[in-house]
Amino acid sequence: MAEDWVNLAERIGTDLHLELSGPSGRRAALIHALREAIRSGRLTPGTRLPPYRSLAADLGLARNTIADAYADLVAEGWLIARQGSGTRVAQRARPPAPGRSPQETARRTPTPVHNLRQGQPDASSFPRSPWLASARRALTSAPSEAFGPGDPRGRPELRRALADYLARARGVRADPERVVVCSGFAHALRLLFGGKVLRGPLAVESYGLAFHRSLLAEASIRTYPLAVDEGGARVEELTGGVRAVLLTPAHQFPTGVPLHPERRGSVVDWACSSGGLILEDDYDGEFRYDRQPVGAVQGLAPDRVVYLGSVSKSLSPAIRLGWMVMPDQLVDEILAVKGEREAWAGVIDQLTLADFIDSGSYDRHIRRMRQRYRRRRDRLTATLVERAPHIQASGVAAGLHAVLRLPSGTERAAVAAANRNGLAVDGLAAFRHPAATMPAADGLVVGYATPPDHAFNAALDALLRVLPPHRRTTSDR
Amino acid sequence: MAEDWVNLAERIGTDLHLELSGPSGRRAALIHALREAIRSGRLTPGTRLPPYRSLAADLGLARNTIADAYADLVAEGWLIARQGSGTRVAQRARPPAPGRSPQETARRTPTPVHNLRQGQPDASSFPRSPWLASARRALTSAPSEAFGPGDPRGRPELRRALADYLARARGVRADPERVVVCSGFAHALRLLFGGKVLRGPLAVESYGLAFHRSLLAEASIRTYPLAVDEGGARVEELTGGVRAVLLTPAHQFPTGVPLHPERRGSVVDWACSSGGLILEDDYDGEFRYDRQPVGAVQGLAPDRVVYLGSVSKSLSPAIRLGWMVMPDQLVDEILAVKGEREAWAGVIDQLTLADFIDSGSYDRHIRRMRQRYRRRRDRLTATLVERAPHIQASGVAAGLHAVLRLPSGTERAAVAAANRNGLAVDGLAAFRHPAATMPAADGLVVGYATPPDHAFNAALDALLRVLPPHRRTTSDR
Repeated sequence: MAEDWVNLAERIGTDLHLELSGPSGRRAALIHALREAIRSGRLTPGTRLPPYRSLAADLGLARNTIADAYADLVAEGWLIARQGSGTRVAQRARPPAPGRSPQETARRTPTPVHNLRQGQPDASSFPRSPWLASARRALTSAPSEAFGPGDPRGRPELRRALADYLARARGVRADPERVVVCSGFAHALRLLFGGKVLRGPLAVESYGLAFHRSLLAEASIRTYPLAVDEGGARVEELTGGVRAVLLTPAHQFPTGVPLHPERRGSVVDWACSSGGLILEDDYDGEFRYDRQPVGAVQGLAPDRVVYLGSVSKSLSPAIRLGWMVMPDQLVDEILAVKGEREAWAGVIDQLTLADFIDSGSYDRHIRRMRQRYRRRRDRLTATLVERAPHIQASGVAAGLHAVLRLPSGTERAAVAAANRNGLAVDGLAAFRHPAATMPAADGLVVGYATPPDHAFNAALDALLRVLPPHRRTTSDR
Repeated sequence: MAEDWVNLAERIGTDLHLELSGPSGRRAALIHALREAIRSGRLTPGTRLPPYRSLAADLGLARNTIADAYADLVAEGWLIARQGSGTRVAQRARPPAPGRSPQETARRTPTPVHNLRQGQPDASSFPRSPWLASARRALTSAPSEAFGPGDPRGRPELRRALADYLARARGVRADPERVVVCSGFAHALRLLFGGKVLRGPLAVESYGLAFHRSLLAEASIRTYPLAVDEGGARVEELTGGVRAVLLTPAHQFPTGVPLHPERRGSVVDWACSSGGLILEDDYDGEFRYDRQPVGAVQGLAPDRVVYLGSVSKSLSPAIRLGWMVMPDQLVDEILAVKGEREAWAGVIDQLTLADFIDSGSYDRHIRRMRQRYRRRRDRLTATLVERAPHIQASGVAAGLHAVLRLPSGTERAAVAAANRNGLAVDGLAAFRHPAATMPAADGLVVGYATPPDHAFNAALDALLRVLPPHRRTTSDR
């Protein structure tokens, strides 16, 4: 009997859980259980029921009992039997509507008509075919142990590929033993500060992602804002009380300037002399349009820099993979925080990305997207010159976004107009540290990589409609 | 010039970051930078350098300058030029050995000869081909927005597939709006308790995973152990002060008994009358060998149960996907903890699992593994009967592990003998809540699913060697 059940279950049918209870006969109990399963929505319309023989074995009933119960439910209209296609749940047998109201669902997924919010690459350009080819090679060649509990450092294949790539393309001094895989930049921050590997106070840039500031606040890390100017963060403001500094040296986020070479040197000097650490957020370092990307600060002082990157901008935020290149002395500490087994980064994505890098697909994808985004950037700046010459775009040498500088006092109205017009775009104020003391500038942060190609022109038109008009008044800065 | 760089970079070669600096000429600077890149290990032996034309465009140098620099480095032995295969880094140009010593690496990855530790399926049985087929269909048919920022609820395709599957196979009342995807059971615990959606005190089973207890301790959740007997957790010990209870009703972990039907009813009564919540850890509910799996408690009271599951046992712990079926009133709270965007579960795994379930591959895989694991269980119990008849295996009706009951006082010596003999296996003591008051029993928790098929017999032999011998003494319970 036991033999029968498991063998039959293996050969035919699918699992179907049914509770048979009550004082009535087995056929009545089965009918009741099936009816209840359909009524409650557990069995959805169109679902094919197991063959008599399979369900009979599963439930330890006679095959006739199943056949009779099915027949009764066909008669009642719950099921439909068709020659050759078995017995299925009838279409009319709809479950009651789910508890959540349509409004609630709508509130959760507001979709603007045009999306120029920064922070994501063009989702329609994800390299599906080469990614799949890498997945095929990765799944075929992976050793069996890859499907066991994961090493919290990440797969060795990926750490080696990343170490090579980051050294070659970003000037990072990485050896695979110091690369630790995670699920993205935010996860890295959580591991570094939530796990007490690093402690505050932490200097940050006066403009940055509010999401990162709130992650740090959750971990009870006090942050001190450094002013940001055309040379990037003013690292000369770093004081002795600060233990670490979080910077975006390749492309200050969101203002878009690279950290000045002298400041790169002086922040490294500060770290070496004070024992401080630099957290280098290299979020879009690959995307520079007019000349070679600026290399990582990490190359100057691997022992004083935690280098952080991810595939969020280069591939997709939907692939949850990031990496930390750690100073040697912190590797064991961060691994202790991650725990004995990998709990976050999926191994198939890890193996696939390793192959994607090694096979050259990653380079090809980045170069292709670099061209595409540069064309968009050029179209954005050309459109502004032509149709809104009073608005300057800054931070356009690199990255996936530009900052449109607005006349003083006009940002809030422009953002409000955008909201009304179905255009998702953020003002600079959304990125400003609440304790920043530098003068506030008005501006819009325009993520020109976000829309698919076919929607880009319409998004630009929408943007132009919400920009403040050119007026020669005293409010003109 | 800008045009040249980005166009050329697109068409040929790969990215190579080099800093050219210093007062000397450009050729000297390039030679220095390449030499330094090789010496430091950034460019590894065998790496192919970009063609002259590509690197010239990248660096804004004349093509001849590149050709001369390459030639000099070939002359110095750093590079090797071969007709038709370009210029590569020479094999002899090895970087210095990495800082981490071999001992440290070895310490981190201790590999026992035989592994009977519970908690993982046979890694060699991962269904690579059907998974890849699902990935192909998923990647081909996914809408573009799937590659944008992820919905913290998880992909709708996966939530629908899970809701159908869990209803059909596990008796869960799930609608997709109440399914929230996460990266595994531990992540679910972190979201529920770290994010203050649920608060303590929490009742737990006196035997369970120490890892889960420490996660709860990190979130400052006090836990109270319930005794466990042959009917599962003694839920009658639940008091008013407790707000929630974490249970493994289908298969108590690790003792292996299902929660008695009367206790299923009474824990639901407790939750309904006290406003308490049941956390149902359905970690291996699919694997039951002699009759139909026990359905989820959640089906009895969807508003009072948080149902938790993952693919860790059914597919692989290397795929970081789990799910929570939430009571309606807690859905918004858990989503607020997850944040605006999905930061954990990768979208390709999510879409692939959705297809894997919908296409029937998941059912087929589980049924195949159920047969395979049952054969192993049968071999384990038959071997004990034959060669160690004084040792009873319990909890063998379901799951991926068995508990071998040992004579009182012999567990510690058996575990120590296992360690000495290269057999990874845990004693019951490792799972006991430190505040448990029920009598302690001696035993080994044997994960018979863990080894690959070809290694299973040898692991069994190793196990038999460390079992306490049969002695007719007073210590024979």
